Amino acid sequence: MITASAQTRIFNFSSGPAVLPESVLEQIQDEIVCLPGVGSSILEISHRGSAFKPILEDARHRYRSVLKVPDDYEILFLQGGAILQNAMIPANLITSPHGTADYLVTGAWSKKSSQDVRFYGNLNVAWDGGSHNFDRLPQTGEIGLTPNAAYLHYTSNETIHGVQFASPPDSGDAPLVADMSSDILSRPVDVSRHGLIYACAQKNAGVAGLTVVVIRRDLLERSAGRLPTYMDYSKHAEAESMANTPPTFAIYVSGLISRWIEDEIGGLEKMDRINHDKAATLYKLIDSSDGFYCGHARPEVRSMMNVVFRTPSEELDKRFADEANDAGMSTLKGHRSLGGLRASIYNAMPVAGVEALAQFMNEFARKNG
Amino acid sequence: MITASAQTRIFNFSSGPAVLPESVLEQIQDEIVCLPGVGSSILEISHRGSAFKPILEDARHRYRSVLKVPDDYEILFLQGGAILQNAMIPANLITSPHGTADYLVTGAWSKKSSQDVRFYGNLNVAWDGGSHNFDRLPQTGEIGLTPNAAYLHYTSNETIHGVQFASPPDSGDAPLVADMSSDILSRPVDVSRHGLIYACAQKNAGVAGLTVVVIRRDLLERSAGRLPTYMDYSKHAEAESMANTPPTFAIYVSGLISRWIEDEIGGLEKMDRINHDKAATLYKLIDSSDGFYCGHARPEVRSMMNVVFRTPSEELDKRFADEANDAGMSTLKGHRSLGGLRASIYNAMPVAGVEALAQFMNEFARKNG
Repeated sequence: MITASAQTRIFNFSSGPAVLPESVLEQIQDEIVCLPGVGSSILEISHRGSAFKPILEDARHRYRSVLKVPDDYEILFLQGGAILQNAMIPANLITSPHGTADYLVTGAWSKKSSQDVRFYGNLNVAWDGGSHNFDRLPQTGEIGLTPNAAYLHYTSNETIHGVQFASPPDSGDAPLVADMSSDILSRPVDVSRHGLIYACAQKNAGVAGLTVVVIRRDLLERSAGRLPTYMDYSKHAEAESMANTPPTFAIYVSGLISRWIEDEIGGLEKMDRINHDKAATLYKLIDSSDGFYCGHARPEVRSMMNVVFRTPSEELDKRFADEANDAGMSTLKGHRSLGGLRASIYNAMPVAGVEALAQFMNEFARKNG
Repeated sequence: MITASAQTRIFNFSSGPAVLPESVLEQIQDEIVCLPGVGSSILEISHRGSAFKPILEDARHRYRSVLKVPDDYEILFLQGGAILQNAMIPANLITSPHGTADYLVTGAWSKKSSQDVRFYGNLNVAWDGGSHNFDRLPQTGEIGLTPNAAYLHYTSNETIHGVQFASPPDSGDAPLVADMSSDILSRPVDVSRHGLIYACAQKNAGVAGLTVVVIRRDLLERSAGRLPTYMDYSKHAEAESMANTPPTFAIYVSGLISRWIEDEIGGLEKMDRINHDKAATLYKLIDSSDGFYCGHARPEVRSMMNVVFRTPSEELDKRFADEANDAGMSTLKGHRSLGGLRASIYNAMPVAGVEALAQFMNEFARKNG
């Protein structure tokens, strides 16, 4: 049941925290004062009590089933976002101060990820797209792997520059580590090609305050005993994500999102097709705008999540974002570091939102072209 | 507006996550699909957008005003709970591997807090209540401070053993660090006696997934440049808690809680009086039960938040918790490490809940005494 205020919902193109499925919001609203059969809010119940246990297990089970996570991987529900992972990953996986980790620097987020490695070992930037403003991704053969590297890290989708790997890069013998913060649950993933996948939830998988880590069990042995409790993946795995009070509400929402993907959408193949179609609508419009709109990323690496583009001038970019906002389409301004415009069209952005934006873009080009 | 399911709310004595004020839950329910004037849920809006900014500022401002935080202290909204603070505190405040931190071990939580110090320096247990099962607190003169200690850490309230400091211990020249996870916002605090106060929010101050840190500004200099981004208080202070995506929903709820204390309750002095009266109801009943109920903590250090007691037998403890649950009073079983019974009566536990429990206790004693 939706209250009157729901009538005024807009199309929210925020890059994250981002739009959620309306049916999920409705269920949260229905249950927020009293979880059915519990007599308390999800916000009020003990993480160790009988009411929360099935919620945690359902979220974990749904993640495993939606993402097809093999049995030899643990699923951890943590806090601290990707920024804490930037420290936890080298802390856990580099086992000596002389060890080296390889990073693909393909945009602002992977660059940031690479910067905390130095506290735990050596950083090797195995590819750097900075010289051409992160508009492309490495080709096979361009990646300079370190022999016996602790791991290779890549960011599957860069929200600011709008580039996305179509498939995981080759890490040789080293475990492959992926930051999937902005495209987890948006398409099928071959988890078995990875040693560790992490994602903060607030783009495709829920709300801010939850970080999901999928880690191959043998990698848990690398940290044993060397790290403070919260920093140690093996302690979280041993405690089944209850080494401390987990972010209970955020886990509950992530369970609802996974259920929405499985039961309402029909799984990740279908989700992927919908996402491709949404993105194609906008990219086709950009490509057929006679140069009025210009996409940032090269066509072959374009993101299905973040469509990054610009008009012929900064002034028109600003007018575009302002007029779109007045028309009920918010947060289309590009990231402050890159300028221009950006439409984030994660899983929960309805097709109707993309169609409304496309119509607006056509009209704006006609009026200002 | 409350839906029908709200009719079935129970009295929830959980030690945390714990009961929230019903008016706060109602406001969340009203706004969860659409924040007034925004057109999106609080769960969906960018942490850097114009809708969230006033929410963050309001929460910070309310905290400062309710807790009377002096101007030379920063208020940080972090993630990872007290367990991450157990590492961040020594990491930031001990400036050399030869430095020592003093800890008062007064129950399960302060013991846990002390255990991660070894990764960053030396631990000195300045007082240990373990030998008498944590039923009392140190007297003046019993605390063995280290000269030039990096800080003295204490836990103002121990939820498992039900002991609470009436006032902060004396730390000599060292900064005093307090874990107030279970009694922040329950009573006035002299912040200026502390170098650092931290609290996870899910007992008195909101929901799981938010840790509030109040830190004296000069202490921020101790970490400069030495730590990975998320571990470094100075980086969070510099970024005004936006070094990464903060837990937006949890911050919003904490703002609502602070507003409830200021505007509905009338401030911390009144909150304290209400909490004292609630606790006194139960302790008086225990003391006048002719030994049927036995409190764990010595009377002079009893907690206003967690009333820990037992009946004459484990069998009766179990029957008590089961029958209370059937009567609409949940989670009265004691912590698994101590057994017995525990009534957590944080800020949001209504007086009616305590009265219902007192009536139940009287009847239970009469029937089984």
